[in-house]
Amino acid sequence: MSEQYFEDFAVGQVFKPSVSVRVAKDEIIAFAKKFDPQPFHLDEDAARKSIFGRLVASGWHTAALTMSLIARSEYRPVGGTVGLGFDGLRWPTPVLPGDELRIETEVLEMRPSKSRPDRGLMKMRTRTLNQHGQVVQEVIGNAMVPRRPAAAKI
Amino acid sequence: MSEQYFEDFAVGQVFKPSVSVRVAKDEIIAFAKKFDPQPFHLDEDAARKSIFGRLVASGWHTAALTMSLIARSEYRPVGGTVGLGFDGLRWPTPVLPGDELRIETEVLEMRPSKSRPDRGLMKMRTRTLNQHGQVVQEVIGNAMVPRRPAAAKI
Repeated sequence: MSEQYFEDFAVGQVFKPSVSVRVAKDEIIAFAKKFDPQPFHLDEDAARKSIFGRLVASGWHTAALTMSLIARSEYRPVGGTVGLGFDGLRWPTPVLPGDELRIETEVLEMRPSKSRPDRGLMKMRTRTLNQHGQVVQEVIGNAMVPRRPAAAKI
Repeated sequence: MSEQYFEDFAVGQVFKPSVSVRVAKDEIIAFAKKFDPQPFHLDEDAARKSIFGRLVASGWHTAALTMSLIARSEYRPVGGTVGLGFDGLRWPTPVLPGDELRIETEVLEMRPSKSRPDRGLMKMRTRTLNQHGQVVQEVIGNAMVPRRPAAAKI
């Protein structure tokens, strides 16, 4: 699929990319060793005694895997996905070893950029779901997307 | 330093942990290959033609490195750092190869948990700074922290 401009999106659109990613236990532990070395992300025995009761992925691992699904998705604005920031990052359900994650994104708001007339601003909610349909992450993102050049409108 | 309870924190406290992390170019590229494979995170030549003008780290890499600094910091609530979610995640300055990052955290709000009397809720702002003192990430986090057991107060 070709890359998309601001004009190719609309408020209320929902994207359900066909890509998914399986979360292996050794990858949960490797990510945690490097970035989030807490017992409930590192070791099954220690995790059993923690508030989670079992080994769970770092929320930041879930966030990074979500980014990987966005990057592999067939819905891609031209020039790449440039995030201006995020609001309301939540991890309502833990990610467990063996989970298979996918994403759904809804366009919540759109407006032309005031400072950059060649770009538009989009507010989107991306939910990451496991194989049971449970939401493991929800985030509201603000992205800057190029507008279609005038020449290309003809 | 020993682990800390809700009662050991106070609104307005600022923590400046002594830990820092250097961001190597090959780690920026390795993270991007795995989680955020966009040209401006993967390749110096392609990055030069992008909106950033040079190779920059994925914001999610910055977020994960920030978590690693929190985990290595001497300010640690007992039982680990359990994030309930985040608001207002921003990356105002790109992270470049060779940057040395550190964090500063301020306690913004504190209140006892209504549903779990043995825990308190803390709202904290964590800024990640580079070696020039520029803020590369800011995030408002909500954490659940155990209260000191009654027996331990004596």
